Amino acid sequence: MKKKFKKVNAAILVIGNEILSGRTQDKNIAFISNWLNSKCGITVSEARVIPDIENIIIQNIRVLSKQFNYVFTTGGIGPTHDDITAQSISKAFNMKYQFHKEAYKILENYYTKQKFNDGRKKMAMMPSGAKLIYNPSSAAPGFMTKNVLSLPGVPSILNSMIENCKKYLTKGLKVHSTTLNLYTVESNISKQLASIQKKYKKFVDIGSYPFFRLGKIGVAIVSRSTSKAKLKNVNQDLKKIAKLKKIELFKI
Amino acid sequence: MKKKFKKVNAAILVIGNEILSGRTQDKNIAFISNWLNSKCGITVSEARVIPDIENIIIQNIRVLSKQFNYVFTTGGIGPTHDDITAQSISKAFNMKYQFHKEAYKILENYYTKQKFNDGRKKMAMMPSGAKLIYNPSSAAPGFMTKNVLSLPGVPSILNSMIENCKKYLTKGLKVHSTTLNLYTVESNISKQLASIQKKYKKFVDIGSYPFFRLGKIGVAIVSRSTSKAKLKNVNQDLKKIAKLKKIELFKI
Repeated sequence: MKKKFKKVNAAILVIGNEILSGRTQDKNIAFISNWLNSKCGITVSEARVIPDIENIIIQNIRVLSKQFNYVFTTGGIGPTHDDITAQSISKAFNMKYQFHKEAYKILENYYTKQKFNDGRKKMAMMPSGAKLIYNPSSAAPGFMTKNVLSLPGVPSILNSMIENCKKYLTKGLKVHSTTLNLYTVESNISKQLASIQKKYKKFVDIGSYPFFRLGKIGVAIVSRSTSKAKLKNVNQDLKKIAKLKKIELFKI
Repeated sequence: MKKKFKKVNAAILVIGNEILSGRTQDKNIAFISNWLNSKCGITVSEARVIPDIENIIIQNIRVLSKQFNYVFTTGGIGPTHDDITAQSISKAFNMKYQFHKEAYKILENYYTKQKFNDGRKKMAMMPSGAKLIYNPSSAAPGFMTKNVLSLPGVPSILNSMIENCKKYLTKGLKVHSTTLNLYTVESNISKQLASIQKKYKKFVDIGSYPFFRLGKIGVAIVSRSTSKAKLKNVNQDLKKIAKLKKIELFKI
């Protein structure tokens, strides 16, 4: 049987020493993944965190942009010496690294003349032909180069810009997700889960995640599919097993 | 000039659909990075998040284990069908996937006979010759295969096991870090920062991170180096610039 829906996927490339050193907790992977999933039907298939080193950025941009429909980069588009995302992407695609006229105007209007210094001007330097991703919170735009969308690393600014990526993206079919919470341990249902996963292999991804709640141990069974009907079937099967094994179900 | 210290690096491979879907916020990258940095002098040079798909795990294990001194995997070592880290690592290294005698005994002792079911037995299946990483919180051990250390995905369990990785790791020289907080904006100091970074290029990595605090905008200048003396020099240079530009410094 052939899947009838179109899958659109993406990778996330987090650029920043501060994430790799453990100084800063990344929040952008979860945010972008959630947004792509729920708003665009796009599945994030891989995420990478890499340092602010030019040849590493270049290499990753080349690999990921070939492998996935879209690549989202976060970080490295500010005014300082360690912000080298734009120049690295230019090199990755053998494009000129130059002033983007509209971006320059946006920044020129935003800052007073005296305050529009070299660091700020640098934020208008982009790969030639880049398309702007407008920034409602701090002016400096992100940009799209081929299939690579570049956003800032500061989560609040990134979050304010994400809707402006939408017009550049081809939507995929939405992936629906259901969660069934069982008061049991994983190993008690692992055999049955495996057989349900096998039965719906082509349509549904089933994951199981242990948790602790009110002093009791439970397992969240998360099923994901583009077909709501198949999800319903999976959950019916799961409920049958719970009944057979006398496992308590509950909603969070 | 040649660096005199030995650099030891690592990659982190987060295995789990729940992180890529945005359902779960990863906390293990920051935790492992911090621990490796502060306790072992090991720098994390890359982190990846990938789905529970065998050939993707195999491919990433092969690439990362060649490229870095150590690879830490998180997730996929539980009792359910989507826990395929051990079998994938076995395949990556062309090793047998078999019961580890000591792990089997640990689990057999931990569970009553009736409760030691197939799912739980599966947690003793490992690449042949794997070395155990003991688990003080829930018995099921992690394991080391060649230079790959495999830990569970649940942060509380992972955190309880991390000290047991130490005996398998060669320590690097500790990387020290200092932070100078300035009440200014990045672009006001970007030129000067770039020249300081250039001056200490071989010894110190300087990063700048904007923040908001008590309604004021500031920049944290984070310098990292194995040499405390060089860090002192960098901070003296930074303070000179702050004085020249009349920028207020403060401690958090």
